[in-house]
Amino acid sequence: MPKLHITVDPTRPVEEQKEVIQNRWHPDIPAIADVKPGDDFIVECLDWTAGQVRNDESAEDIRNMDLSPNHHLTSPIYVEGAEPGDLLVVDILDLGPHPKRNWGYTGIFSKCNGGGFLTDHFPHAHKAIWDFNGVYATSRHIPGVRIPNIAHPGILGTAPSQKLLEKWNERERKLIAKDPERVPPLALPPEPKNAILGSLKPGSGEFDRIAKEAARTIPPRENGGNRDIKNLTRGAKAYLPVYVPGAKLTVGDLHFTQGDGEITFCGAIEMAGWIHLHVEVIKDGMNKYNISHPMFVPSAIEPRFSKYIVFEGYSVDEEGNQHYLDTHVAYRQACLQAIEYLKGFGYSGEEAYTILGTAPIEGRISSVVDIPNACCTLWLPVDIFDFDIMPNDDGPKHVIKGGNLPKAL
Amino acid sequence: MPKLHITVDPTRPVEEQKEVIQNRWHPDIPAIADVKPGDDFIVECLDWTAGQVRNDESAEDIRNMDLSPNHHLTSPIYVEGAEPGDLLVVDILDLGPHPKRNWGYTGIFSKCNGGGFLTDHFPHAHKAIWDFNGVYATSRHIPGVRIPNIAHPGILGTAPSQKLLEKWNERERKLIAKDPERVPPLALPPEPKNAILGSLKPGSGEFDRIAKEAARTIPPRENGGNRDIKNLTRGAKAYLPVYVPGAKLTVGDLHFTQGDGEITFCGAIEMAGWIHLHVEVIKDGMNKYNISHPMFVPSAIEPRFSKYIVFEGYSVDEEGNQHYLDTHVAYRQACLQAIEYLKGFGYSGEEAYTILGTAPIEGRISSVVDIPNACCTLWLPVDIFDFDIMPNDDGPKHVIKGGNLPKAL
Amino acid sequence: MPKLHITVDPTRPVEEQKEVIQNRWHPDIPAIADVKPGDDFIVECLDWTAGQVRNDESAEDIRNMDLSPNHHLTSPIYVEGAEPGDLLVVDILDLGPHPKRNWGYTGIFSKCNGGGFLTDHFPHAHKAIWDFNGVYATSRHIPGVRIPNIAHPGILGTAPSQKLLEKWNERERKLIAKDPERVPPLALPPEPKNAILGSLKPGSGEFDRIAKEAARTIPPRENGGNRDIKNLTRGAKAYLPVYVPGAKLTVGDLHFTQGDGEITFCGAIEMAGWIHLHVEVIKDGMNKYNISHPMFVPSAIEPRFSKYIVFEGYSVDEEGNQHYLDTHVAYRQACLQAIEYLKGFGYSGEEAYTILGTAPIEGRISSVVDIPNACCTLWLPVDIFDFDIMPNDDGPKHVIKGGNLPKAL
Amino acid sequence: MPKLHITVDPTRPVEEQKEVIQNRWHPDIPAIADVKPGDDFIVECLDWTAGQVRNDESAEDIRNMDLSPNHHLTSPIYVEGAEPGDLLVVDILDLGPHPKRNWGYTGIFSKCNGGGFLTDHFPHAHKAIWDFNGVYATSRHIPGVRIPNIAHPGILGTAPSQKLLEKWNERERKLIAKDPERVPPLALPPEPKNAILGSLKPGSGEFDRIAKEAARTIPPRENGGNRDIKNLTRGAKAYLPVYVPGAKLTVGDLHFTQGDGEITFCGAIEMAGWIHLHVEVIKDGMNKYNISHPMFVPSAIEPRFSKYIVFEGYSVDEEGNQHYLDTHVAYRQACLQAIEYLKGFGYSGEEAYTILGTAPIEGRISSVVDIPNACCTLWLPVDIFDFDIMPNDDGPKHVIKGGNLPKAL
Repeated sequence: MPKLHITVDPTRPVEEQKEVIQNRWHPDIPAIADVKPGDDFIVECLDWTAGQVRNDESAEDIRNMDLSPNHHLTSPIYVEGAEPGDLLVVDILDLGPHPKRNWGYTGIFSKCNGGGFLTDHFPHAHKAIWDFNGVYATSRHIPGVRIPNIAHPGILGTAPSQKLLEKWNERERKLIAKDPERVPPLALPPEPKNAILGSLKPGSGEFDRIAKEAARTIPPRENGGNRDIKNLTRGAKAYLPVYVPGAKLTVGDLHFTQGDGEITFCGAIEMAGWIHLHVEVIKDGMNKYNISHPMFVPSAIEPRFSKYIVFEGYSVDEEGNQHYLDTHVAYRQACLQAIEYLKGFGYSGEEAYTILGTAPIEGRISSVVDIPNACCTLWLPVDIFDFDIMPNDDGPKHVIKGGNLPKAL
Repeated sequence: MPKLHITVDPTRPVEEQKEVIQNRWHPDIPAIADVKPGDDFIVECLDWTAGQVRNDESAEDIRNMDLSPNHHLTSPIYVEGAEPGDLLVVDILDLGPHPKRNWGYTGIFSKCNGGGFLTDHFPHAHKAIWDFNGVYATSRHIPGVRIPNIAHPGILGTAPSQKLLEKWNERERKLIAKDPERVPPLALPPEPKNAILGSLKPGSGEFDRIAKEAARTIPPRENGGNRDIKNLTRGAKAYLPVYVPGAKLTVGDLHFTQGDGEITFCGAIEMAGWIHLHVEVIKDGMNKYNISHPMFVPSAIEPRFSKYIVFEGYSVDEEGNQHYLDTHVAYRQACLQAIEYLKGFGYSGEEAYTILGTAPIEGRISSVVDIPNACCTLWLPVDIFDFDIMPNDDGPKHVIKGGNLPKAL
Repeated sequence: MPKLHITVDPTRPVEEQKEVIQNRWHPDIPAIADVKPGDDFIVECLDWTAGQVRNDESAEDIRNMDLSPNHHLTSPIYVEGAEPGDLLVVDILDLGPHPKRNWGYTGIFSKCNGGGFLTDHFPHAHKAIWDFNGVYATSRHIPGVRIPNIAHPGILGTAPSQKLLEKWNERERKLIAKDPERVPPLALPPEPKNAILGSLKPGSGEFDRIAKEAARTIPPRENGGNRDIKNLTRGAKAYLPVYVPGAKLTVGDLHFTQGDGEITFCGAIEMAGWIHLHVEVIKDGMNKYNISHPMFVPSAIEPRFSKYIVFEGYSVDEEGNQHYLDTHVAYRQACLQAIEYLKGFGYSGEEAYTILGTAPIEGRISSVVDIPNACCTLWLPVDIFDFDIMPNDDGPKHVIKGGNLPKAL
Repeated sequence: MPKLHITVDPTRPVEEQKEVIQNRWHPDIPAIADVKPGDDFIVECLDWTAGQVRNDESAEDIRNMDLSPNHHLTSPIYVEGAEPGDLLVVDILDLGPHPKRNWGYTGIFSKCNGGGFLTDHFPHAHKAIWDFNGVYATSRHIPGVRIPNIAHPGILGTAPSQKLLEKWNERERKLIAKDPERVPPLALPPEPKNAILGSLKPGSGEFDRIAKEAARTIPPRENGGNRDIKNLTRGAKAYLPVYVPGAKLTVGDLHFTQGDGEITFCGAIEMAGWIHLHVEVIKDGMNKYNISHPMFVPSAIEPRFSKYIVFEGYSVDEEGNQHYLDTHVAYRQACLQAIEYLKGFGYSGEEAYTILGTAPIEGRISSVVDIPNACCTLWLPVDIFDFDIMPNDDGPKHVIKGGNLPKAL
């Protein structure tokens, strides 16, 4: 039996949650619960925006979202006996949508507010609402596709030490300084506005100090964090470096599914939900295994497909400029090839983009030494479609009526 | 029955091959054979270096290799009826090592001559010789590992049109111009020295013109070419854009296996061999499917594993500098994590690097929107090792005696 | 949103359930709910025995169980528009343990009460209690093994027509007549004692007629029923023949996992739980597809393994008698081989038997024409064990302390 | 490099083969070659009939085949140091069609000469010729299907001891005695006619003794032998009990593919070919692992599919008679269901039967305790067909023109 069950109510605002919320990384954010190695426990989670996105027919909520309070995390949890240098072993025993919210969403964020991997091609805000039907998600906004569950926590991490935190802030500041006015920004510095630090109350000196220092939760870092790896699904086992006493495990930002890359930024099917975890500790594990980053062992219970269409991209950009082994550019080209292909079956570009963000596509770095072109491949499982998308002599036989995604006016 | 069987003898030098060889891309290189849609045929191939690497205990051959005559390709083949705008559909029916050469090699190229994905970490030349035992490769230089076959052609492509060729040369010249003295170079311009253009004889005006214009075969481009995608293995179906009448299909650079990325540059297990292909044509297929790049459908007969250790890397480089969603840096970090892990089991860094280059690892772009850190993952199949490499409470139990790779003095 | 949610309380006896229960097959058992094609709905289910098995350290409950009231099914459900000759298409959207009972059990039934596939080898009653930890089940009674979820309904079927029912009763009566006193029996005739017929009340003439005619729910038949196919798991799609207006869909006997064969009789991990279904109808589908039996399309979300030890059995029995292409005998031999193998690692025979009943082993008919020996194979996934069970030069390295299964005194 | 390469010429009759042939099991058949543990070697093999089946348009050869000289095996091979009680570990490194014969065949044997699993339904002789195109087989006799290679030796075994041989003969004689006149027979006793015993010459006393005692090669037995397990494909590792000094390994009866059950008797795609093996010995392995039968570890390089239609059968026979947990009857019903389904797409019954015999279908014993009905399932991979065979609302959309199998007049 789970030793602990932390609850939230996704139908109520953050302020009314019984449990305290965390939306920054800092060693001094107080733990909300204690567990021992060998324990398992359940954590309920708000969706990453804490309900800012509505189940309706407009993307105004996406367009105008205040990103500063995200992600909303019902954590951290103190693991007794875990010490810096250990590896925290986290079994993801199961997870699912919150009983009170049987739907999720995918957002294409505006270039002016968040952006995304293809923001220059799709600069305007759109969204798709997905209904959960057991292990499948379908959307009234995207016909012809049914996406199998590969639920996972976008965020799973431990607290940084003060020293590690300072390293993060320093290196990210330097990056921002290269182009401080860029839209979307290169990185996000600590932001006291809308910081939520668990049981610490705004106004106290401690709160103000931490809020000024605490790292944003957007990127993954040496503590894990917002890795957005779809394969951290039920049955997987994660190994996380420990940097502070008690490890201070944080989890949240649950996704029903996601494609490799999570390319629309809010590209997964975002959901409020629950996650069931089990923890162990490998003493001195970072040293025993020469590990400075998280690693994991995937689950035998992932969805598996045998039939894919694989699209290729190389590191030549849309204007024809040649880049040097740039896998970012190469994967973007593979995505654009896939989108053009799907448009041939009637989907709008935004719909195709959303499918690639949410379906369990694989994004692979196939070759990265053949100067000057890296080759990245995008693996699209064909059996998620209700109709045949394989190429043949005649061209697309079945064409759907696309263009249904809600947008911001 | 195959309509055609083109032979080579890997025990003899290029000059003594009966069949003409091609080592550049150009629309005017004469075809060496004609086939019709519906035909299947076998092409034997020299290894990419045409025998420059010896089965011995020194990496001098890697260190001092003249790269300008590579790759050596027994092509092109004219497909009757194929016209610009069509898709050439190539079934890879089977492939294997050449009957006269039952071994292959992997090279870590010197930073001064070729380099590789981790050349700053491994700047010196090394090599490993692999013996083929049916579907497994083992190396006297790398204990404890047996690698299952996922043979594929590094190069599979069609000839560029003159216009496309000019576009390539132009964009690559611009890149080179950014740092013309860089070692290793950013890209390789046309190089008349050591050009081999099939039946065209050096000294003729036609030869000289083409040799000056023809693109090198190192990078993949819109015609396919040196994609180095391990999944183009037996049973896969490739779709290639056609740019010239007859498509002029080129194939070669066969690999016994390779990991995603082919990270040591000559990172696959390189081999001389044969490949059995079948061709069809989808008329006007580029237009019917909005396709401007190759795509493929993978095979049901790939090696499949269920147990992996997955290493993660983010876009912070080895000096701690923060990059912006740089998947190249992120995958490099994942590779370095895996190498450190394997070193804990006794492998030298070069051995671990070679294992990652040759074993059927998967390299995935897991997330690429969480500014500023991309997250790439490296999937290492644990069952290729003779001993247990899974993490446990005690640290590595079995440690091999590493450090056996031949090197250049 | 599910159109319907039928609830049960597994902590209370059958008599106190709000919903009516069915434990026999008959066309005239009244439906407990109506749905339309396109609807999805949730049905909660008691375990097949309705709570007769306790979470304790004795197998007396198994030994003395009254089998006549099993299985307990919260059904049938009327599907509007379904008519005889149609195919009912049932998507198994998801299923899981009941929130009020986070454990399950496996029983080895006594030869005198139920028996099992190896009852002559294991004639006494034993049981194992399993705790559910998300997608894994572990047992305090069986060390060293963790079994991944492949939950499925043991029973999924439609109501027989009166004519089909009579055919069943007739053919089964004939079989029983061949050896009416056999223990365990060859088949079970209609049994009015303990019949539960939904809203029909005992004592009425209608109840008595139906109770006398109604078929037991133990075997699978042309309507589906108790097929005990582990692959009917979340994500699978079942096609069921329709024999009566409204199809009268029945579901229950949920299993957390099961091995092919369900060899200990109550060999799955039996649980109380819930299942989420979606229904469609293919009009005249039996005729369109020449179908007279159920069929299904499996799920992409099954647990998948790549590493197995495969045991073989042929149709020579334990006494050395030769049978003719008898796959029943052959599979029994394969099971016995696997049990002996596992005993070498310290398990008692009963523990090994239970592992084979519950783990997702595969049981295959590998060849059935090589007179006189059929060859059946049992595929045991090695990664369910905490320790290494692969053969090597030295024999078993790790041996567990077996013999922990509760038994009947 | 292989230590040994044993050759045959499939274009010549048995009498003209350079290597001696074996077609019976007996401890005293002389070995044709010696190898050491750690060696690998290649054995070329005639097809099982040694060329009795022609690549033509008549099944007269199948109808009138003399079965007594089958199988033709280029063996046995002596493994130095192997002793009774050891386990012989055989790695199947690779195998393929003979370079001189790029086609294979499947036979439906007449009920009067061999029969097959469904001989009462298909009593007449038919055959199909298959062309090998790399890893795919296609047949001019069966449109619409392309079958991926899962090549394997039908026969892989060690020699029996004299005592084990006598046990076989005794138990099989007893079975035959139950119905000695049955057609097809229940089993085949030793048959001196057409016995081939390697280097022993007919007429010698030794030859006559052995020919009278030697067991036929049709069934699998405790030594392995004709197991016809499709999964013993390239990359698999077999463990064989050793009963005589040197183990006397025998291999042959190569198949290009086969479905579970090999249901048409000569149901695989039979071929002449070569096989590359590696041997090791586990001393006293039968005792260390409690093993009395062969076992194996399957290959990571099997063809894998994710999309199947699964047909079910229960143990009620075609006349409606109820059998007791009879998996033989149940699997036959599943096969018949699949055949009826495929007939709806235009195939003749014989064509559908042949597809099930040759395609990599899976045959599973799904449940075998639900008295009186066993449930067997047949898994048909849909992606082997050129057209869509999934069920839908409309019935089969594409229908091929069937009825093309050559038959005996």
